[in-house]
Amino acid sequence: MKRRIGIDLGGTTAKLGLTNENGKILRRTVVDTGFGVSGEGLKARLLQGCLQLCPAEERQNMSSIGIGVPGTVEKTGATLTFGPNLGVHNVSFAEAFRSAFDCPVCIENDANCAALAELYQGAGQGLQDFLVVTLGTGVGGGIILDGKLYRGFNGIAGEIGHMVIRQGGRRCNCGKTGCLEAYASSLGLIQTAKEALAKYPESKLKEIEKWSALAVLQARDAGDLAAEQAFGRYVEDLACGLNNLIAVMQFEKILLGGGISGYGEKLLQPLREKVNGQLMEADCRQTEIGLAEAGNDAGIIGAAMLTE
Amino acid sequence: MKRRIGIDLGGTTAKLGLTNENGKILRRTVVDTGFGVSGEGLKARLLQGCLQLCPAEERQNMSSIGIGVPGTVEKTGATLTFGPNLGVHNVSFAEAFRSAFDCPVCIENDANCAALAELYQGAGQGLQDFLVVTLGTGVGGGIILDGKLYRGFNGIAGEIGHMVIRQGGRRCNCGKTGCLEAYASSLGLIQTAKEALAKYPESKLKEIEKWSALAVLQARDAGDLAAEQAFGRYVEDLACGLNNLIAVMQFEKILLGGGISGYGEKLLQPLREKVNGQLMEADCRQTEIGLAEAGNDAGIIGAAMLTE
Repeated sequence: MKRRIGIDLGGTTAKLGLTNENGKILRRTVVDTGFGVSGEGLKARLLQGCLQLCPAEERQNMSSIGIGVPGTVEKTGATLTFGPNLGVHNVSFAEAFRSAFDCPVCIENDANCAALAELYQGAGQGLQDFLVVTLGTGVGGGIILDGKLYRGFNGIAGEIGHMVIRQGGRRCNCGKTGCLEAYASSLGLIQTAKEALAKYPESKLKEIEKWSALAVLQARDAGDLAAEQAFGRYVEDLACGLNNLIAVMQFEKILLGGGISGYGEKLLQPLREKVNGQLMEADCRQTEIGLAEAGNDAGIIGAAMLTE
Repeated sequence: MKRRIGIDLGGTTAKLGLTNENGKILRRTVVDTGFGVSGEGLKARLLQGCLQLCPAEERQNMSSIGIGVPGTVEKTGATLTFGPNLGVHNVSFAEAFRSAFDCPVCIENDANCAALAELYQGAGQGLQDFLVVTLGTGVGGGIILDGKLYRGFNGIAGEIGHMVIRQGGRRCNCGKTGCLEAYASSLGLIQTAKEALAKYPESKLKEIEKWSALAVLQARDAGDLAAEQAFGRYVEDLACGLNNLIAVMQFEKILLGGGISGYGEKLLQPLREKVNGQLMEADCRQTEIGLAEAGNDAGIIGAAMLTE
């Protein structure tokens, strides 16, 4: 039976999984990738993890080893070109596993891996055209078209967080103003909540010691008015972004993942209302909005399912 | 030799072309479609035009008859569902040509036809992924992915004019605020120019009797300050919209068509500067921005190249 390895490379650890041909995880391990490890050290640790995951007799049955990274990649040489949170740049992984594995080594950014994970093991199974939106510290996107990952002619498609929805609005880390990410990320929600707090000085939000999206959402659940207002604006901004993507691409489904998607139906229900309220052609089949399902394993599964 | 017929259906006339298998126009005719014609009357006139275009001995060699319309369509029955400028709705064309032609009848909106025309006879020849943007009274989009027209799961993809770039901004005809179309259409440019005129009361724009995008651009060419400012803002807004589309889809090329694209290099050069100034990853291959080439024949060519 053919096997695959998926590696979800993070700033402090890498999660590795041995999977079947469909990305179902059969065995796992974790290796340390602590900040300060050199490129060579990182390659050695990942190889070590793969060897541990995979007894000698199974190493000849490998279809591919895939690596998902929070950064930009270049397919040639399976190269991580830029990974701000990893502390290494321009590391080519293609040769790292050659001593023990005779299979292709692939690399892809984590948002695209999340989309592949939904396609093979999550809520995108059986769909042709869909979008996975990751609502985390940033806002990422992974696009599946015609049942395949869509990367664009230069490999960097899907940067939906840097679609401008309010030109001249908040300054984004990318240098532009008014990007979706500046509003719909967890940092965006926190900023919106702080702005609301200024209008509702009696809000419980002022007692928050360590700001997080979760703290704002919990305050909303407790009936805090500033948090309610911030959440309302968050939904409006996210709906605007999703509506833009629907107008252009008419995806069959949009699947939400990442930390804020954990708010579940409490997010989905008002979001669907806002999006549907803005659609132009009410008599057409409409894009469904749901939750991504691959969860914490999305990085491993998506990496395992990468192909050259 | 196989032949095709493309019909560019407009509010006052329909332009018909007999083409070869690649959409090259071999013969043309025009029929009147004046407002007030019924659905049945329209079908009869189009059939008449096709018969005129196509001598009896050629009618058996037809691959397809395609109709491009300024409106929304439903593939089943080759149905025009809604065409605000045509004065007819829910007209099914599938049977209209059956008496004389034994071939499929296809229908598509004009923006998608424009994209197909570039693919087969224009600046998109040989490309896999590109976008055609029509800058006219409105702003339309036609998307080619993997060398084929991309319609989305419900057939209405490509509505780039209704991507919001300035939430809370100008009211758009679609009911939303801040849509690209409200700024980057000819009506948007005219409105921007009128706003600039309010700040420069000595501007020559006040002498315009019949406002048009062309009149504004001519005033700019003559050195008028209000027109210059309006054009600068026009370029900024259009660049914002194109940049959004690039961030998400990374098209290999974006081709501009429609009336305002006639401004040519005077539009392209500042537009490219603005778009490039906003790109995130300077070391990647970048989307090229150029002009559509199929011109006034785009509707005929694109309609001719439709497939079921």
